[in-house]
Amino acid sequence: MVEIAQPEPAEGEVLVKNLACGICGSDLHFMLYGEEMMRGSSQSGNAQFAPDFGHDIVMGHEFCCEIVGYGPNTPERLPVGSRVTSVPSRGAYSNVYPGAYSEYMVLDAGMVLPVPDHVSTEEAATTEPMAVGLHAVRAGQFSGGEPAVVYGCGPVGLATIASLRNEGAGTIIASDFSPARRELAGVMGADIVVDPRETPPVEALRGQGYQDGSDVVIFDAIGVRGTIAMTMREAPQRGGRIVVVGVCMQDDTITPMAGIEKELSLRFVLGYTPQEFAETLDHIAGGVIDPKPIITGKVGLDGVEAAFQTLGNPEQHCKIIVTPHEENAI
Amino acid sequence: MVEIAQPEPAEGEVLVKNLACGICGSDLHFMLYGEEMMRGSSQSGNAQFAPDFGHDIVMGHEFCCEIVGYGPNTPERLPVGSRVTSVPSRGAYSNVYPGAYSEYMVLDAGMVLPVPDHVSTEEAATTEPMAVGLHAVRAGQFSGGEPAVVYGCGPVGLATIASLRNEGAGTIIASDFSPARRELAGVMGADIVVDPRETPPVEALRGQGYQDGSDVVIFDAIGVRGTIAMTMREAPQRGGRIVVVGVCMQDDTITPMAGIEKELSLRFVLGYTPQEFAETLDHIAGGVIDPKPIITGKVGLDGVEAAFQTLGNPEQHCKIIVTPHEENAI
Repeated sequence: MVEIAQPEPAEGEVLVKNLACGICGSDLHFMLYGEEMMRGSSQSGNAQFAPDFGHDIVMGHEFCCEIVGYGPNTPERLPVGSRVTSVPSRGAYSNVYPGAYSEYMVLDAGMVLPVPDHVSTEEAATTEPMAVGLHAVRAGQFSGGEPAVVYGCGPVGLATIASLRNEGAGTIIASDFSPARRELAGVMGADIVVDPRETPPVEALRGQGYQDGSDVVIFDAIGVRGTIAMTMREAPQRGGRIVVVGVCMQDDTITPMAGIEKELSLRFVLGYTPQEFAETLDHIAGGVIDPKPIITGKVGLDGVEAAFQTLGNPEQHCKIIVTPHEENAI
Repeated sequence: MVEIAQPEPAEGEVLVKNLACGICGSDLHFMLYGEEMMRGSSQSGNAQFAPDFGHDIVMGHEFCCEIVGYGPNTPERLPVGSRVTSVPSRGAYSNVYPGAYSEYMVLDAGMVLPVPDHVSTEEAATTEPMAVGLHAVRAGQFSGGEPAVVYGCGPVGLATIASLRNEGAGTIIASDFSPARRELAGVMGADIVVDPRETPPVEALRGQGYQDGSDVVIFDAIGVRGTIAMTMREAPQRGGRIVVVGVCMQDDTITPMAGIEKELSLRFVLGYTPQEFAETLDHIAGGVIDPKPIITGKVGLDGVEAAFQTLGNPEQHCKIIVTPHEENAI
């Protein structure tokens, strides 16, 4: 923990008090592989994502906050004291704009969305990760009733499961090594949950009457080396769609022949649109999706370091919420 | 060259005299990597493609033939003496059914299509590779006017270029190291042809007023290690579609982050549908596509071995047609 100056909102900005911020798997990745992520980005010609590792970076991009005040000449769209959330439009890993693992930050005043009173602060903070799931599901282009197979039941996989039914999926199969994560997958909406060491997910699908050659949408929500190749190898015959929503930071090996022979599509996705973010908040507010089961703990700022450690074990926690103004311990 | 028995048509089959058969790049691959191809196939659970390497395999699947006779109880849909072509429905690499690098073979009588009189035998033999191009282009899902970038101007890349305009592409950029292949790319319909050592294809696209973020469809028609990663790296920002039509037989390395940050789709394709094959023959007959420029030589059966060697050099030949009943030399 370090002390930094409280930011001042400039024109077009709003100063907010950070009430809750989820710890994201990509923050854990960033801590371990930040510079490698950077290299991948510069390779792909994406210069916008370029923090300076010589200076502090305050992470935290899954937040619910309270409006404290507006910058000069900035219309007060929502009253001071309103609870809000927002797309992290200033970037999740910025030297210039601190994220929400802090007491105060500034946001684009035009981007903040009001949180309805009946939605808890912690639930509102899950809008961001749940929007990642909605976006991934839409990339799967369900026309209605296709079965879905989700590999990996971390927060991204669980967010994907949460949106599948509403977006047209048929039978939902989920796969994870962890008993705790498998239990959550069932709670979030998976019809069948398997330990892939015992039952390959596609075998479970066949047990449901699935015929080879029919449409199926596979989600790789694991994001470590080898998982893309695994989903390509395991995809049932012809025309399968694989949505890659897990983020593998390193180079990875695939077998192109597996893709070619089955005419697979690999769809890499990232984030969500502002529209999908707003829809996700509406889905939470309307009870269409319920993110509460994934929230397994809360910590104050002095617990963040320990929380990062703890999240390495899927049996203990899923989503830990940082509460910068509250003493909490996991 | 070996002597084998002339096949006898069974019920439902037609005996044909092989007039012309193009040499396909996948035949060259199969000669070099046949067993590795097999391993990829069995990995992906595709058992149908399983020749026995202990016995002769007569290749040749891009053919135009003449009907000699029908099997018992088989309706004579077309008169004996008709020139025909067909989807190689018995598989391109079969121990059981010889391909068209031979004097006679049998085909499914229900699958043969008549070749119109004004279409030459050699042109008709290109229906198969040109159909591969049509299928790849359709996997690119053009909505109209999107620019296309084709990496690799071998027969597959050239067949892709030939169908792009009719299927809705805007500006067509083609890239190849070989001057001879670049010249063919222009003849087949590319608007701009580049040597990638001098001008990256995407830079040529920007020179045409292309804005980052707009749709673009990229075709990987190279099919060697590293080309998928290259097209992913070079794809301009966000939402690009990459159709993988070149066949890389070995495992390959990609950088998932490049796909994730730009939300790329990789669409692996193989072959064509029978409908696309028939449409391609119509396109050739109607002058919608003209495959003649890709045909650079003809050889008799005793020249096939030398032709396989020669095809290693893109400056010398593109598509060599085997003429089992004619003495020809390249």
